Amino acid sequence: MSQQINVGLLGWGTVGTGVTKIFQQNAGLLAQRTGIPLFIKRIADLDLKRDRGITIDTGQLTTRAEEVINDPDIQIIVELIGGIEPAKTLILKALQAGKHVVTANKALLAEHWDEIHSTARKFSQEIYFEASVGGGIPVVQGLNEGLAANRIQAIYGIINGTANYILTEMGRGQSYSSALARAQEKGYAEADPALDVEGGDTMHKLVILASLALGKRVEPQDVHVEGITRITDQDILYAREEFDQQIKLLGIAKQAPEGGIQVRVHPTLIPAEHLLASVQGVYNGIYVVGDSVGATMFYGKGAGEMPTASAVVSDIIFIARSIHMGAAGKVPSVYYHPQKSIDDLKIEPVGELISEYYLRFNVKDEVGVIAKIAGMLGEQGISIASVIQKARHQGNMVPVVIMTYEAREKNVRKALESVDRMPFVMQPTLMIRVEKFDE
Amino acid sequence: MSQQINVGLLGWGTVGTGVTKIFQQNAGLLAQRTGIPLFIKRIADLDLKRDRGITIDTGQLTTRAEEVINDPDIQIIVELIGGIEPAKTLILKALQAGKHVVTANKALLAEHWDEIHSTARKFSQEIYFEASVGGGIPVVQGLNEGLAANRIQAIYGIINGTANYILTEMGRGQSYSSALARAQEKGYAEADPALDVEGGDTMHKLVILASLALGKRVEPQDVHVEGITRITDQDILYAREEFDQQIKLLGIAKQAPEGGIQVRVHPTLIPAEHLLASVQGVYNGIYVVGDSVGATMFYGKGAGEMPTASAVVSDIIFIARSIHMGAAGKVPSVYYHPQKSIDDLKIEPVGELISEYYLRFNVKDEVGVIAKIAGMLGEQGISIASVIQKARHQGNMVPVVIMTYEAREKNVRKALESVDRMPFVMQPTLMIRVEKFDE
Repeated sequence: MSQQINVGLLGWGTVGTGVTKIFQQNAGLLAQRTGIPLFIKRIADLDLKRDRGITIDTGQLTTRAEEVINDPDIQIIVELIGGIEPAKTLILKALQAGKHVVTANKALLAEHWDEIHSTARKFSQEIYFEASVGGGIPVVQGLNEGLAANRIQAIYGIINGTANYILTEMGRGQSYSSALARAQEKGYAEADPALDVEGGDTMHKLVILASLALGKRVEPQDVHVEGITRITDQDILYAREEFDQQIKLLGIAKQAPEGGIQVRVHPTLIPAEHLLASVQGVYNGIYVVGDSVGATMFYGKGAGEMPTASAVVSDIIFIARSIHMGAAGKVPSVYYHPQKSIDDLKIEPVGELISEYYLRFNVKDEVGVIAKIAGMLGEQGISIASVIQKARHQGNMVPVVIMTYEAREKNVRKALESVDRMPFVMQPTLMIRVEKFDE
Repeated sequence: MSQQINVGLLGWGTVGTGVTKIFQQNAGLLAQRTGIPLFIKRIADLDLKRDRGITIDTGQLTTRAEEVINDPDIQIIVELIGGIEPAKTLILKALQAGKHVVTANKALLAEHWDEIHSTARKFSQEIYFEASVGGGIPVVQGLNEGLAANRIQAIYGIINGTANYILTEMGRGQSYSSALARAQEKGYAEADPALDVEGGDTMHKLVILASLALGKRVEPQDVHVEGITRITDQDILYAREEFDQQIKLLGIAKQAPEGGIQVRVHPTLIPAEHLLASVQGVYNGIYVVGDSVGATMFYGKGAGEMPTASAVVSDIIFIARSIHMGAAGKVPSVYYHPQKSIDDLKIEPVGELISEYYLRFNVKDEVGVIAKIAGMLGEQGISIASVIQKARHQGNMVPVVIMTYEAREKNVRKALESVDRMPFVMQPTLMIRVEKFDE
């Protein structure tokens, strides 16, 4: 058995700095919980001059990641560079060099799950990635271990704090653009917010959760993705005042009623009294339904220096304990494994979804428009539950909101294609799916 | 390495039956997630005749627990008998016989933590107990592993579904006694509900959470315990309508602002918009604040056959994987250990608590009563934030509700002792603490 465990850090940005802070602040606690002393031996970053508000022995620092990976005293490599390259190459090199790996890199895991997991297996190394989804929330472990007895029936995740912050602010009456600007001011959103507001980040995290929970490798291209950029504060107001619902950007992976699984990311109407509706601002919530446990939820901060560092360090402790026990890498974590699927479930095309739909038509304020829309919906067998036409403040364009009864999405899409070709339609129709929860 | 892992069950009641159901329904999934076939080899129960809605090979069954413990092919013993004896003796025997143990027995763990953990350590066996707190919610693992990087600053737990169900129903206008009767009808409350409504069950679970999270063995007698039996639907109404608060029975373990830790179980006013206020009915929610992760919450069903069985089976899978890796029992789980404490924290006496207080005085409807009460509070340095006197429906007894500013509890108690000796007081004053959340 080793006398101590040494960790090497690749990437000393926000989260990496948080990790070094935890090692300094809670050193005794980490050693106690690991059962063996635990050190950060080397840190690689291209920018070593920036003031990070922490004092580190400069001998630990290097600009060359390979030096860290090839240090024979280091057993655990922590990758916090982000993005695909050079992170991917460095992780593969670390695994090949016989190092266990901790990463927070959701994009990389979502895109290259098979290669990374099969390399870890081939070289009998552990790969842990709690921080890749939900920041400090221990949901990866929850799915892998805490709920391991369950066949997971559904996951509904608010897993992008930026999008949730924007929707929360819009619920307080701000426009999309001013909510986005405020998110950028506060540092919650990047200068280019596309990955957050268009759903790509949620998709990456959903791919990881779904692959773990459903026991099947879900590919990014399997996921139907829509963002929040077309939602208005008026939609949020209508949802709340007329339907007692909230609009949340959800990543959903669930068993389809007709067999197969659904994996989709889109703005979703959910009941205002549902627990997920209480997840406000930059917080994340992952609502998981298992066949034995029923409904559970994991909640916390989905991003930020210290919450994300919390997850990274917890992974380090876990692997260090395994090394200390002589167990690390010994038994493949079967249910991580790409080629093994619990069932040979098919991904259901989103057109097969059966849902109620919130439809906002943006039409000229003319007599007979609602009748024409209703007729086109009716041609596709879609029944209308309610119609709202109130505001008339956008020149001669008025929003007409229709809530449908349950319908199949491909029929709704056909109807909307017909409607959107009509001369009275001034902007493409907005469609938001309505989620009902069995539990 | 073993070719398979065999499990022995002690106690085939509700949860035990749920465990056997999961083994039958999800056999393939369990083997895949464990990495090795997993079987229930023997089941001991005094009543083998009751119909449990499941078919078991009768050769597996016995009325003698020792037969299961002494079976050399069995590596994991699952204790689901409950109560102190014979559960305690059987668990100790199993550990001494070189078996790992899974238990859901909160009372036993709370009362005999040291003896059980030190025996497990002495004989190099694992003891897991996820099901002892929060049913299927993986909060024990969350504290031990997922949040292991954190110094835990506070735990606020709604961890008794029966009490929470009763308070939820009272919030819908039912009296305490009719809400309790309904809970009993639905099977949520025992014929003798004392352990649930008087806070004892919450205390047992809090002792476990606090011992894990704070790194210090908390004894049952360290915990200040009050139940919900004196709460009326009127208190809940006042809390909501006048103060925008809800009343929840919370188990609280937190770092005291003046040093030391607070461990207490009592009805508590919390802000209506706080996430814990959304935990309704028989659901449980455990809100945990860590120094790095910030605020997190674990939510789900805190009781019942299948949710509790989910936690038991997840523990079995975890230990079986450890056995398969040759790691089980190899390294003591330091932060489980009774004698080790992260800091030598002192338990703060509840009299030292600083809080706002909701006080319901039950007085004769006489002139000058409020002035007299206010005077007695003032003598102890307690300032009044608001006074409510409205309902006059209980003969000549009227409730006077006073919300105080922050005060020290021992001063409040002194004041209430004086007030309650006054001739105009018809029933002892009800005091409910108000919890503010930093996160």
